[in-house]
Amino acid sequence: MKAVVLLSGGIDSSTTLALALRQGFNACALSVDYGQRHRQELEAAKRIARSLGASLHRIVSLDLRAFGASALTADLPVPKGRDAALMSSEIPSTYVPARNTILLSLALAWAEVLESGDVFIGANAVDYSGYPDCRPEYLEQFERLANLATKAGVEKRVCYRIHAPLLRSTKAEIIRIGTEAGVDFSLTRSCYDPSPQGLACGACDACILRRRGFEGAGIPDPTRYA
Amino acid sequence: MKAVVLLSGGIDSSTTLALALRQGFNACALSVDYGQRHRQELEAAKRIARSLGASLHRIVSLDLRAFGASALTADLPVPKGRDAALMSSEIPSTYVPARNTILLSLALAWAEVLESGDVFIGANAVDYSGYPDCRPEYLEQFERLANLATKAGVEKRVCYRIHAPLLRSTKAEIIRIGTEAGVDFSLTRSCYDPSPQGLACGACDACILRRRGFEGAGIPDPTRYA
Repeated sequence: MKAVVLLSGGIDSSTTLALALRQGFNACALSVDYGQRHRQELEAAKRIARSLGASLHRIVSLDLRAFGASALTADLPVPKGRDAALMSSEIPSTYVPARNTILLSLALAWAEVLESGDVFIGANAVDYSGYPDCRPEYLEQFERLANLATKAGVEKRVCYRIHAPLLRSTKAEIIRIGTEAGVDFSLTRSCYDPSPQGLACGACDACILRRRGFEGAGIPDPTRYA
Repeated sequence: MKAVVLLSGGIDSSTTLALALRQGFNACALSVDYGQRHRQELEAAKRIARSLGASLHRIVSLDLRAFGASALTADLPVPKGRDAALMSSEIPSTYVPARNTILLSLALAWAEVLESGDVFIGANAVDYSGYPDCRPEYLEQFERLANLATKAGVEKRVCYRIHAPLLRSTKAEIIRIGTEAGVDFSLTRSCYDPSPQGLACGACDACILRRRGFEGAGIPDPTRYA
């Protein structure tokens, strides 16, 4: 059975891909080039899709910079050195408006074409509690929408399901799960502000969460920091 | 107050833009270049946005051809000469998977950036009853999703509303409403398969509905047919 797996090239989506494959799905990985400044993510996604054995990997281009207003797609400074309490209570400027809604709608379109009802997303409600579109109630609502939105759903040929297997896991747990499922984390990229050589900054929210995750998991961190 | 108005360049979305302006909204028109073969739509959208007085018009590029499977984006023949009963009972091959979900998610992203809660779409459940994502229950579900999906919605700074003012109108009614609201329909394009010179084929579903709409409205059809 086919499943569409959203793959950004970071820890969570790579682990999600490994879990979809382990559940026996014929995993079709989908990455979106939405003008992110960390384009090394897309290169990481390609390496991970190949290394884990996704049966297809498609990259869809969508230029969100037309809308402005996010550090990930515009030329605003990436916040550095924030503490965990702030990270989890405040929606950061790296928030991309409606990002998961856009990503899930693209995944849904491809799933419909593939006649698959299963969409996997590495959404996480623990470390990213500040992102509204990472919450369980949001994902449940999208699942209901998917079944109303599509020819296959309306004709009851397919029942759409949004799988977010890491929704309630901490970063340390995800790193343990991913390691057991065969993810080579040296291939993944998390940094919001990497050097041109691909070295992680070590100070943005994503680097801080990643580093603490490896520490918490008791697994050596393969990341090359600047 | 700002509103995002999805504008394809056809009769329904042009009339919707005119209605949003007439309701006093500062209308920000959004067109999506999703690899449609009738690119003349986008040129029509530009002319209409200018002619009606949209305060902004943005075109976002998204290449859906990566997913295949639709006559509007791939190289399949466009169905011609279908009768009305068939048109309204069968989902046509011109169906674009998850199209309105993708369009609404992009509109939502821009609305969030603009700090607007109002999104207008020219969805119609009468002539396009075969499209699942043109039904009232689908649009209500998207509205619920929008309020869960976004920073502004969650923080209750904005209450999102999806406006589909033409949802229950016939094509003839839409043409009358649009004419009263000042739409110059000679600027709009509906044909799924226009000639390189921009002449409408007269035989695809969109041309048939358009022609009958003008007949039903008792308004001269300004379309140039091949």
